[in-house]
Amino acid sequence: MSILYYCDDDDGTLLSALRQRLADTNIIDWQDQRTQLPHSDITSAVVWMPPADFFDGLTRLREIYVFAAGVDQLLAHPGLPANATIIRLRDAGMAQQMAEYCLYGVLHHQRRMMLLRRAQREARWAHEIQADLAAQTRVGILGAGALGSRVAERLALNGYPVTCWSRTGRTPKTPGWRSVHGAETLDAFLASSDILICLLPLTTATTGILDAALFCRLPRGAFLINPGRGGHQVEDELLAALASGQLSGAMLDVFSTEPLPVDHPFWAHPAIIITPHIAARSLVSESVEQIISSMEAIERGDSPQGIVDRQRGY
Amino acid sequence: MSILYYCDDDDGTLLSALRQRLADTNIIDWQDQRTQLPHSDITSAVVWMPPADFFDGLTRLREIYVFAAGVDQLLAHPGLPANATIIRLRDAGMAQQMAEYCLYGVLHHQRRMMLLRRAQREARWAHEIQADLAAQTRVGILGAGALGSRVAERLALNGYPVTCWSRTGRTPKTPGWRSVHGAETLDAFLASSDILICLLPLTTATTGILDAALFCRLPRGAFLINPGRGGHQVEDELLAALASGQLSGAMLDVFSTEPLPVDHPFWAHPAIIITPHIAARSLVSESVEQIISSMEAIERGDSPQGIVDRQRGY
Repeated sequence: MSILYYCDDDDGTLLSALRQRLADTNIIDWQDQRTQLPHSDITSAVVWMPPADFFDGLTRLREIYVFAAGVDQLLAHPGLPANATIIRLRDAGMAQQMAEYCLYGVLHHQRRMMLLRRAQREARWAHEIQADLAAQTRVGILGAGALGSRVAERLALNGYPVTCWSRTGRTPKTPGWRSVHGAETLDAFLASSDILICLLPLTTATTGILDAALFCRLPRGAFLINPGRGGHQVEDELLAALASGQLSGAMLDVFSTEPLPVDHPFWAHPAIIITPHIAARSLVSESVEQIISSMEAIERGDSPQGIVDRQRGY
Repeated sequence: MSILYYCDDDDGTLLSALRQRLADTNIIDWQDQRTQLPHSDITSAVVWMPPADFFDGLTRLREIYVFAAGVDQLLAHPGLPANATIIRLRDAGMAQQMAEYCLYGVLHHQRRMMLLRRAQREARWAHEIQADLAAQTRVGILGAGALGSRVAERLALNGYPVTCWSRTGRTPKTPGWRSVHGAETLDAFLASSDILICLLPLTTATTGILDAALFCRLPRGAFLINPGRGGHQVEDELLAALASGQLSGAMLDVFSTEPLPVDHPFWAHPAIIITPHIAARSLVSESVEQIISSMEAIERGDSPQGIVDRQRGY
């Protein structure tokens, strides 16, 4: 078996960790021009953000291991082989980071840090600014998958009332939060979300879900946290909702174009916190172990966790 | 029994809550000039930040209920009667707020939000900025009292390794954190505190404890959170530690002069987050219940919780 490897943004750590764990396997670095093996030998690929011609000539490719939990970018790749099995990472240490990111955003809004920062810029002792109590700060999470449910658990542990909404419904596997599902519950869910967190997969059904029509169903002055996918948010409608006061602020990790262009109005907006798609990074060792355990499952003839349903989109 | 009342900063909520719960008791508002009762009738006072002449003529004053957990300001009051019993609030819903405040500061440092904010001001996509993991972010708390131990518990719950230092030693009453005590453990405690939180009472022994000598015993680039008392920090030495890089940042709720003067260098410092002494506010209903249960204990001849030892200073 030969594995073709391409992970954008890897400084070599991931590749060497893979080679160390799979010492008997030929792992070919796509970027290494010295390697000139026939492509028809390659049955597996480990990828993140592969370039346009990555899959050219890979006629025997059976499995594609994605070094990420989200696969929307890969599914949109024009050269993606139609019949290869795609295996994505499960949360892989990413849920904890995601929970921290969301907790920071929740505290930022609940504790009125945006107003306190503004007062600091004005050298003003704003003793009158009142934080809400955690128990009064209702958090709604769109999505109740591996990430959404772990974020919900963490926020509940810190005293916030949390509700997750999902399309098909999930029974909470972790304690302390409520789950609702289906289109008919969405209005009530949104109306009681002082803070809305989007952790949906990006599919045709969820693209552009964070739009003016959704923002106006939130309580006035709600706060948005989007560590999911840039394709979820309609960016000019988000700016309009901030301008009208319907939203009081937003913390965004993802954008319709990444890197966010230098002339984008988000950068200088006083009510937007921008982070550069770093809410949750894949952790090398945990991710490598997941990939290897998936490979072993396939070798045994078992079905590994994380197989992507191309129709569903995740 | 007549109670004399003065709480700075009360918008009337606290006084009316007290009057409602103590309907049969005469509660005199010190600020109400229409009331001209003889002062010698007054046996109790409920105070926060009483003015210089508040205690004048209160010859029969037996108990002073302080609407706060910290009493250093009251103990420094020049007119404080020598023989009255002082009863302070226990944490009273303040521990949860304090835990949130500290958790925000810890996340801010761990997740490199200061560097990310700087990048945002420069419209720079700083994907290279790496957060630490919670498990690698060692938090040290000076003080292991009602507040310190609750803050420790909350941070431990969120995955941080936490150690509390105290002068005399406390066995952790809440799970997940370590406790050390005594002067001989202070060096090792400081050397392993990536983030230092000060929650000591302000006494003659702790005044100015956050000084150059202490900062240089922390790991280089440590982060300071002070929601305790302004008298703990030596402000010019804190600025010097930030300038040298020994400290990477600070989140301060308290200052040697409050309100912080408009020309103070802290306001415009890019590595300092200033909050106007709002980390933990006394919550009206819980505080009123505490004061009333202390009054009832004294009436029964019992000793209420929260009696201040004037020698110790808390």
